[in-house]
Amino acid sequence: KGYSQPSTGVGKNPQNIFFQIKIKNSYSVFTGYLMNERGAVEMSRKSPFASWLCAMLHCFGSYILAALLLGEAPLGYFSNNSSVILATAVWYLIFFCPMNLFYKCVSFLPVKLVFVAMKEVVRVRKIAAGVHHAHHLYHHGWFVMMATGWVKGSGVALMSNFEQLLRGVWKPETNEILHMSFPTKASLYGTVLFTLQQTHWLPISEANLIFFFTMFMIVCKVFMTATHSHASPFAPLENLVCPVLFGSASSGHPGHHHDHHGASHEVSHPPPPPPAKSKEELNEGTRKRKAKKAE
Amino acid sequence: KGYSQPSTGVGKNPQNIFFQIKIKNSYSVFTGYLMNERGAVEMSRKSPFASWLCAMLHCFGSYILAALLLGEAPLGYFSNNSSVILATAVWYLIFFCPMNLFYKCVSFLPVKLVFVAMKEVVRVRKIAAGVHHAHHLYHHGWFVMMATGWVKGSGVALMSNFEQLLRGVWKPETNEILHMSFPTKASLYGTVLFTLQQTHWLPISEANLIFFFTMFMIVCKVFMTATHSHASPFAPLENLVCPVLFGSASSGHPGHHHDHHGASHEVSHPPPPPPAKSKEELNEGTRKRKAKKAE
Amino acid sequence: KGYSQPSTGVGKNPQNIFFQIKIKNSYSVFTGYLMNERGAVEMSRKSPFASWLCAMLHCFGSYILAALLLGEAPLGYFSNNSSVILATAVWYLIFFCPMNLFYKCVSFLPVKLVFVAMKEVVRVRKIAAGVHHAHHLYHHGWFVMMATGWVKGSGVALMSNFEQLLRGVWKPETNEILHMSFPTKASLYGTVLFTLQQTHWLPISEANLIFFFTMFMIVCKVFMTATHSHASPFAPLENLVCPVLFGSASSGHPGHHHDHHGASHEVSHPPPPPPAKSKEELNEGTRKRKAKKAE
Repeated sequence: KGYSQPSTGVGKNPQNIFFQIKIKNSYSVFTGYLMNERGAVEMSRKSPFASWLCAMLHCFGSYILAALLLGEAPLGYFSNNSSVILATAVWYLIFFCPMNLFYKCVSFLPVKLVFVAMKEVVRVRKIAAGVHHAHHLYHHGWFVMMATGWVKGSGVALMSNFEQLLRGVWKPETNEILHMSFPTKASLYGTVLFTLQQTHWLPISEANLIFFFTMFMIVCKVFMTATHSHASPFAPLENLVCPVLFGSASSGHPGHHHDHHGASHEVSHPPPPPPAKSKEELNEGTRKRKAKKAE
Repeated sequence: KGYSQPSTGVGKNPQNIFFQIKIKNSYSVFTGYLMNERGAVEMSRKSPFASWLCAMLHCFGSYILAALLLGEAPLGYFSNNSSVILATAVWYLIFFCPMNLFYKCVSFLPVKLVFVAMKEVVRVRKIAAGVHHAHHLYHHGWFVMMATGWVKGSGVALMSNFEQLLRGVWKPETNEILHMSFPTKASLYGTVLFTLQQTHWLPISEANLIFFFTMFMIVCKVFMTATHSHASPFAPLENLVCPVLFGSASSGHPGHHHDHHGASHEVSHPPPPPPAKSKEELNEGTRKRKAKKAE
Repeated sequence: KGYSQPSTGVGKNPQNIFFQIKIKNSYSVFTGYLMNERGAVEMSRKSPFASWLCAMLHCFGSYILAALLLGEAPLGYFSNNSSVILATAVWYLIFFCPMNLFYKCVSFLPVKLVFVAMKEVVRVRKIAAGVHHAHHLYHHGWFVMMATGWVKGSGVALMSNFEQLLRGVWKPETNEILHMSFPTKASLYGTVLFTLQQTHWLPISEANLIFFFTMFMIVCKVFMTATHSHASPFAPLENLVCPVLFGSASSGHPGHHHDHHGASHEVSHPPPPPPAKSKEELNEGTRKRKAKKAE
């Protein structure tokens, strides 16, 4: 898959990377719309331009966010006409292919798992590239490096509220930072690792870090997709560390005891599914409820 | 009106263009507030600063958005003190002129039609300038050129949700991309034409394209304003092309039939007026309903 | 406190300024969270990362907004690792100190008043620095200078809607521009004064202006904090000037008389507390109501 080669700077195999980048765009559209299929179909008929724009956000959201954070042109990546045209072609095939052939092909589980795995390859490379790019601009800006790597890895998920607003949906009670899904949380941990590696605090070569982190992400995501499991692989570690660092969720300051019930009204009530559930489970549940309703 | 001269780069008549730019600012305030008059009057009394800021967004929204997309300073255009002062003076006269004389003058239909026509002249020139500017930065970035021209032509309409948020109104179920008004849609088609012309795919000189597109926009807008008609001139062409390209709005994928009713809940329900209606009709209807309520 | 020295460009006492900058970060977290304590405690337990990000917005919001307006990297200030680490340490101590010792110390009224006073010192210096920075980029851009100084002085308050969105709260009916709190309004007046001084329209040296404006801000804020008063010190002057410039809030245009009641539905209804009340009063009232509810 190409990850075994060092990815410092421009890759040594331009052909291989060019091909991967092109496939990556397609994957983003695939996975993004595999989550949003029902509503997205209707929107593609009523407002095809808005549907296309959503697809572009899913494909290029990471580049847009990274450019926004670093003060560069958010549209800069759109100057790659071939990437945009490929993403447009994939969007069109997903939504308007006769007899929905294309979508059925990519939803077929073995094919979907291959795409899921390749998306994780690309995600990890984007995190590494983001950390590199920020390091180039801010040699000692650790937090800038971590932020850039994080938004490169998470992509459109971090602007989910506004991507939904584009579709006319507004759910302010939750967001990807308040209730992190697995890819966003994994990107956060990954960007910390890559920043530590970049600043030589982590004694591991970049190629090895990319390899091991990619393997971890592929195994987790393929397992979660294949079994529809929602157990976060980080849960055991977090359940050890977080109560120590941050206290348990039920305890508050003794002096605020009276106001605790009131306080819960100040902060948003998380939506009924507990935060550990991924967005895919939310959509899964929504799909099942709709199927039951319609029957 | 000056559009017959080539507008490549800096115009040959700096005086003429300077005068037009100044008038343009005024028009934007006029037309923006002719849409929002009732609520805007009250806001100008209670929160004059917020009212002024809205006026600035209406006048300079296109420059702000284009700068945001290209990674430039959003406030860059505000360094033209004379433009800002003129826009401020027009805002003040509209809202605080004794006996409301100024507003009555500019709302008088023949005067209003002149302003509407001149606004379209300026809109088309801004689209051309936006495509030029993006071409200068990204010689082959077709999508960047189209996006920049589009936001220059559409202006504040594309950030209508956030302009409303500034006024304390929040209507997430619709936005200018999901349900395009006529000026936004015309700017989109216009920017595609201008980008094709800039990249030599469309064999027409820029001056001629500006002339013909401006004439088209003037005729459409003056007719629509004078007759309060809401028929989109693009409807015949779209009704031919869109069902072929995008399928009809009622048909979905056969395998999603059960979920269609459910799907409609995923995507936002458009507001009661059908998308073809312009914002002006919405306000027109709102004004009439309020007049009836008050009587 | 160091404000008596000229603050043009880099201060003459780098040690003093370095120390002040570090303390400033702490103050921002203090004052920000002293307003939001109840809900913030619960969020720090459930979503510590979101809580930390909120703290960073409170500390560095002014730098983020100023960079956004001037087309620079919003994350640029985060390259100062020591500032971010200090702010993180203060955040951690506020929320996770055993027996809540740290918070109790800084909430002790005499200590709180010292912090409030020092925050005003830093606010005025940030307004002056913002006007300077914009002057450097746009020598005659008066409005750019005023805008930059204003966002530097107001900080996170101007993006309160989105800071609340990060916490899962959405209150679109009000915002800091529609209903200005005292610090935001004072920053607005201050930035106008500093811009007039910078462009030599106000015949006063910068050091004197900083001194007098800081004294004014300290006296007002300390008095308002100590007495829980909500009377705006600008009210007398505004009640003289605004009816002359902008008319009274109850009068409208005679020709719109019928539609006035309808118009109030167009513009957002301000929340029950009148605009003159500061955000602190809103929270004060909220705290009291919750305390009563819980008893």
